[in-house]
Amino acid sequence: MEKRDRLYEGKAKVVYTTDDPQRMVLHFKDDTSAFDGEKIEQLAQKGVVNNRFNAFIMGKLAEAGIPNHFEKLLSDRESLVKRLEMIPVECVIRNRSAGSLSRRLGVPEGLVLSPPVFEFFLKNDALHDPMINISHIKAFGWAMEDEVARMAELTFQANDVLQALFADAGLILVDFKLEFGRFDGEILLGDEFSPDGCRLWDADTQEKMDKDRFRRGLGGVVEAYEEVARRLGVPL
Amino acid sequence: MEKRDRLYEGKAKVVYTTDDPQRMVLHFKDDTSAFDGEKIEQLAQKGVVNNRFNAFIMGKLAEAGIPNHFEKLLSDRESLVKRLEMIPVECVIRNRSAGSLSRRLGVPEGLVLSPPVFEFFLKNDALHDPMINISHIKAFGWAMEDEVARMAELTFQANDVLQALFADAGLILVDFKLEFGRFDGEILLGDEFSPDGCRLWDADTQEKMDKDRFRRGLGGVVEAYEEVARRLGVPL
Ligand SMILES: Nc1ncnc2c1ncn2[C@@H]1O[C@H](COP(=O)(O)OP(=O)(O)O)[C@@H](O)[C@H]1O
Ligand SMILES: Nc1ncnc2c1ncn2[C@@H]1O[C@H](COP(=O)(O)OP(=O)(O)O)[C@@H](O)[C@H]1O
Ligand SMILES: [Mg+2]
Ligand SMILES: [Mg+2]
Repeated sequence: MEKRDRLYEGKAKVVYTTDDPQRMVLHFKDDTSAFDGEKIEQLAQKGVVNNRFNAFIMGKLAEAGIPNHFEKLLSDRESLVKRLEMIPVECVIRNRSAGSLSRRLGVPEGLVLSPPVFEFFLKNDALHDPMINISHIKAFGWAMEDEVARMAELTFQANDVLQALFADAGLILVDFKLEFGRFDGEILLGDEFSPDGCRLWDADTQEKMDKDRFRRGLGGVVEAYEEVARRLGVPL
Repeated sequence: MEKRDRLYEGKAKVVYTTDDPQRMVLHFKDDTSAFDGEKIEQLAQKGVVNNRFNAFIMGKLAEAGIPNHFEKLLSDRESLVKRLEMIPVECVIRNRSAGSLSRRLGVPEGLVLSPPVFEFFLKNDALHDPMINISHIKAFGWAMEDEVARMAELTFQANDVLQALFADAGLILVDFKLEFGRFDGEILLGDEFSPDGCRLWDADTQEKMDKDRFRRGLGGVVEAYEEVARRLGVPL
């Protein structure tokens, strides 16, 4: 496998083509952004931690039967993945209220949501990732109805797997965001799973161990990510 | 039937109890509000037009098998309705893009949405009526799953009936909002259907014939409502 052209640089990763048109390299940067890119900082080592964290989680999800793009770790900051035709819709599950849900619905953080809340957001920074629903996705052609159902199904399956995994590490999986894409007629989980795209609270102290430390300027961001990785047994 | 206590004054109507605990009087005011009550004006005769307009539409919907609270016109501004236990969720269907949908999703007004877009909003002025979905309604207990399904079903049925009705009058039903409530174990359509809660465009000229005239300060608001009523054959 040979890394070729820089295809796209996002807020957290750079994507490269390879000699295989069906494969890509994801390069995890230290860049950390919040509020639709309004707050951006470099946090030393974050890219390394997230690359390894993501590899570990994608492996666990694949073991549990959740098909995803991850193929292998290439280096500290790079992973080889299948090249997907990404669907511009983010799938969010919330096991507890926090963040934009708390703000939008005027509820305190930490309420247990049962059944979990499931939300779709349009992946569009300029529009501030507006919340959408199935009828918007159908009317605007962002995905087919069966693809939408599959994304929701896989997100709920991932929630079951990940809630248990984090619970065993003394962590509450408050919420998380997934992105999916098409590959060979199938829907695969793409992008990344890391503390950048979920909320994790210490089960005993309720301490935030995720990107909210960055959003709120609490400090110790990468240290918290590393602590989560250590508890899960992610090799760093 | 005897009108008794003022129960609640909303932005457009006053609600009175009657000697029958299962019945209420809706009094239609001239007050017209927009932007969550930020812009409020009295528009002479609007309450009279909306009271008669609503009576006509509720009759058409009942004929088409859509159960609703309307019982009878009592006077120029008052109607007798069944007293419902209101569900704090607004059901919106959009046949064309306009208003908040255009703003949120960055699309021009007037796109034909096929299938129509269906949205739920939490009825809460302080929170600016945030968009919600079925999982929020379930998690926060605003309605039961079968009630949610019934509200959606009735809203789509109403869309079919009303699109045809307005089309025959040379009008495009762009979008509309319905509110439902519980009565004797059944879901009934409640509140009102009037140009205050829908968008209607002249089919030939695309001229706005609804509350957008007020929101945008175009003038001729009540005159437009009266023209719509005249075309439909609503006795004014
Ligand atoms: N397997 C994949 N195939 C194609 N594109 C992918 C894949 N995984 C992730 N992507 C896309 O690559 C970009 C990743 O970079 P990121 O920095 O997260 O970008 P963004 O700022 O758009 O979120 C995203 O647009 C994401 O959707
Ligand atoms: N049949 C009914 N039974 C009980 N409440 C009703 C019924 N129809 C409408 N309502 C409620 O009465 C109020 C009507 O007044 P309105 O001026 O539209 O109020 P708002 O400013 O809350 O929208 C609304 O809260 C509406 O939900
Ligand atoms: Mg991203
Ligand atoms: Mg109202």
